Amino acid sequence: MPEEPVNIGIIGLGTVGTGVARILRDEPERIQRRAGRPLKLRRAVVRDLNKPRGIELPAGMLGDDPQAVINDPEIEVAVHLVGGIDPARQIMLDLLDAGKNVVTANKALLCEHGDELFARAREKGRTIAFEAAVAGGIPIISAINHGLTGNQITSISAILNGTSNFILTQMVQERSSYAEALRSAQELGYAEADPTMDIDGTDAAQKLVILAQLAFGVKVPLSVFPRQGIDLLDLSDLTYADELGYIVKLLASARLVNGRLELLVLPTLVRHHTLLAEVHGPFNAVGLTGDVVGETWYFGAGAGQMPTASAVIADLIDTVTGRTALTFPRLEVWRTSPPFEIQPSAEIARRFYLRFNVDDRPHVLADIADILGRHEISIASVIQHEAPETELRPGHDRLIVPLVIMTHRTTEGAMRAAEQEISRLPALLPPHIRMPVTE
Amino acid sequence: MPEEPVNIGIIGLGTVGTGVARILRDEPERIQRRAGRPLKLRRAVVRDLNKPRGIELPAGMLGDDPQAVINDPEIEVAVHLVGGIDPARQIMLDLLDAGKNVVTANKALLCEHGDELFARAREKGRTIAFEAAVAGGIPIISAINHGLTGNQITSISAILNGTSNFILTQMVQERSSYAEALRSAQELGYAEADPTMDIDGTDAAQKLVILAQLAFGVKVPLSVFPRQGIDLLDLSDLTYADELGYIVKLLASARLVNGRLELLVLPTLVRHHTLLAEVHGPFNAVGLTGDVVGETWYFGAGAGQMPTASAVIADLIDTVTGRTALTFPRLEVWRTSPPFEIQPSAEIARRFYLRFNVDDRPHVLADIADILGRHEISIASVIQHEAPETELRPGHDRLIVPLVIMTHRTTEGAMRAAEQEISRLPALLPPHIRMPVTE
Repeated sequence: MPEEPVNIGIIGLGTVGTGVARILRDEPERIQRRAGRPLKLRRAVVRDLNKPRGIELPAGMLGDDPQAVINDPEIEVAVHLVGGIDPARQIMLDLLDAGKNVVTANKALLCEHGDELFARAREKGRTIAFEAAVAGGIPIISAINHGLTGNQITSISAILNGTSNFILTQMVQERSSYAEALRSAQELGYAEADPTMDIDGTDAAQKLVILAQLAFGVKVPLSVFPRQGIDLLDLSDLTYADELGYIVKLLASARLVNGRLELLVLPTLVRHHTLLAEVHGPFNAVGLTGDVVGETWYFGAGAGQMPTASAVIADLIDTVTGRTALTFPRLEVWRTSPPFEIQPSAEIARRFYLRFNVDDRPHVLADIADILGRHEISIASVIQHEAPETELRPGHDRLIVPLVIMTHRTTEGAMRAAEQEISRLPALLPPHIRMPVTE
Repeated sequence: MPEEPVNIGIIGLGTVGTGVARILRDEPERIQRRAGRPLKLRRAVVRDLNKPRGIELPAGMLGDDPQAVINDPEIEVAVHLVGGIDPARQIMLDLLDAGKNVVTANKALLCEHGDELFARAREKGRTIAFEAAVAGGIPIISAINHGLTGNQITSISAILNGTSNFILTQMVQERSSYAEALRSAQELGYAEADPTMDIDGTDAAQKLVILAQLAFGVKVPLSVFPRQGIDLLDLSDLTYADELGYIVKLLASARLVNGRLELLVLPTLVRHHTLLAEVHGPFNAVGLTGDVVGETWYFGAGAGQMPTASAVIADLIDTVTGRTALTFPRLEVWRTSPPFEIQPSAEIARRFYLRFNVDDRPHVLADIADILGRHEISIASVIQHEAPETELRPGHDRLIVPLVIMTHRTTEGAMRAAEQEISRLPALLPPHIRMPVTE
């Protein structure tokens, strides 16, 4: 009977969960037309029953025990919006064991325990849908799993953290320091009180790992590829980048190079007048190159209540129509025999932007150039301005100037070896900055 | 038995068909993994058996009669790559009647006869997949039908014709005339020998009609909305636009305004430093705004052998897995009772760019400004340069100068009425140019 409603349980009624509950309440006809059956919210589980929330629910629907969803045989699909790993992992396993299909937005959980969870779902003949886990409202999981199935994806290049992108945009547009930009991001709700995972690159790396698993069938631990956030950048780096014709973005990339998979999450110089350079504020962007289709790009809100709810609702509809049941068993994720090896980070080749803070005295540039030369790193351009960049650092009785060098193509390994030598020069004041440059 | 191959027939082995046949031949394992069964090309039908083609096929596979596919009971899915309306329409009806599921790239056919063809497919319990009909390799049909199903789409804003975009890019970057740019497009294979449908806006309008049908459930005849190509533009228009902070794109847009659907295919001024402004050469771009997700954007190759083949293969895999059978019956296309009325074109409101060629004598600007003012059209800015734009037109003994006016927001209707009056001024040398400006 196609008219029989599908009962839904939501575990986790925070910002996104409230958005999902609102759409289910406000757009029942639209959803029924597209899902083929009415979707009925039957239970919602929260951690703290006393916390005020943005939606009123009928008496008896709300509880604080996930077992109310897990053990309700009438619930067919569970929306799993529990953050973190514990108890999120156990709740998802219990839902699958209880025969529920699951829709989730938890990227950290899939990044760390996706293999176990997917195996359990397959064993139980159930599905996990996770469009909301990566790039919020952008239907990027669907693009990989449906739109580009004729392709072997050969590269992913993405802005996956809206908080970092907002801060970088703010620094460039308002000429504000990193600290000031972070403060506005927090005031405007684009950064959490503790923004560590966003600004240190962890969040972007978790999302990249999920995309790489889908696109390349490889489980990559976060520890094996270079990852850095935006917290060490100075406004001057953004200004020098601009002078060289670039804008700085926190770029997550994964690509096949000679049959090996190369991954990076690093602040990166992106050329002006490209699509990526025009991704401003809290927006996300994902570039997917396929061996048949060539380059494709996807843009949209990377987070936020309704964009993420849009992804959850799409997954609910896919699950209820049965499309997920056809797609999920064929996803080439978490294969036991990965088809690609990971490129050792020392062999990753790029052009690099370098900024050293050095004593304003003769021969410093010559010393640095000599060390780079001995490591076969050739210099493409140098910026060394006179005042007003010249300044006396607090606590230092030395005149320090920034020295910016753009290299030709070289490897991470060569860069690291050269930097080690350079860091021993007495004229150098640490830290220095290194960023790759897009081609 | 999941290992049993699915037999495929291709009708039309031109550029795209050859690409599809090559992928089926070269990537059997990839396709089997994703489709669940092997896909086997069983028959290919061409118009002219003697024409050389880019793929060798086993003896007996190639024929010149579509009936060989239509009447072969072993063929489950037909790839319909016949252009135009006749006999393309009849061939598709025959395929559906014979119980085949169909994958097609024919936008003109779906634009004109989609309602009939979809009805026939539903009646026969078969499906039509058409990702390749709009925006080549960009999985835009999938984005509307899967990724954004939680949304009512509220606006579409797109560059859908790669030939026009290539020509406009060429004019801007090489400072070449329209005629020269068209010639390079033809030399490079981005424009056909007869490029009429591409450059006069018809191709983009047909694609917009298909997107609008999916997104809004409305069948819109091409005749009811403003449509113009790039063939009347002068290099000077692109230069003036640049001076005003814009780039000119052939923009196809459809959006809901106060519950009515407004459609346009017109050369349009797009602001610098936006995503759309960075779509260069033969690329396509589609912006979809949803009431839940907000703005999302999709970019990629809009045509070409392999990008379009990528879309066909994705449709084949969706059809073979059974996903299309779940999606197709629920598409809200060609509804008998359209949910939205079409906005009369006179009521479409925009800012406008105007270029008049006028006699270089006093009071002309005052006369034009007076007419605009009486139609309540207010002027935002004016460009009137002295030499070198001043010139004696061949066959005219008058000194003619271009007068460029940017208006504030007004309606198409007000503009048309004002233009009619302005065209009667003796100082005016027709034709004049009018382009809307994106907000």
